[in-house]
Amino acid sequence: MIVDNLEPTYYAVIFTTITNDNLDGYQETAQRMEELAGIQKGYLGIESTRNEIGITVSYWQTLDDIVAWKNNVEHTEARNLGREKWYKQYQLRICKVEREYGFKN
Amino acid sequence: MIVDNLEPTYYAVIFTTITNDNLDGYQETAQRMEELAGIQKGYLGIESTRNEIGITVSYWQTLDDIVAWKNNVEHTEARNLGREKWYKQYQLRICKVEREYGFKN
Repeated sequence: MIVDNLEPTYYAVIFTTITNDNLDGYQETAQRMEELAGIQKGYLGIESTRNEIGITVSYWQTLDDIVAWKNNVEHTEARNLGREKWYKQYQLRICKVEREYGFKN
Repeated sequence: MIVDNLEPTYYAVIFTTITNDNLDGYQETAQRMEELAGIQKGYLGIESTRNEIGITVSYWQTLDDIVAWKNNVEHTEARNLGREKWYKQYQLRICKVEREYGFKN
């Protein structure tokens, strides 16, 4: 799904990943994290897709909301598992969305 | 490929897309645009993946670099073709990257 109901400024977390071959438990945890993110304060939406690399972008009202989500206990545990087991490499970027354009046919 | 050699602050363009069924000419144009972007002033890198939706994130030194790329003639033609033929929906966001964390196993 494309998130197209927001108005700048707000924040985006761009999470780009390369996974390992053994992904036991990954799918369940990823889905749980999406659900859990969705009920956090300041959560605005998420866009996610995976092919050779994965890109997940979540949107948040403020930087404080992102920090609170980062410090969520279950999220912290999932992140530790990700580093131990699932991710070969990732990059996480915190961005301020300044402008936005949409198109729908 | 994951872009992991940058230092904030810089800019990201998050381009999220849903394509039509008929994608004649799309792949060639997408590849050409990636090549052309790569030789523009201020270009820093690109991450791209597609499954049910496509997410492409390109990175740029300044907002002016993004505007110059937007106004590139060949890019403008490709964008018009995209709206006429290939895209059912897209959302384009211009963001300032403020913080960044990386992990490599």
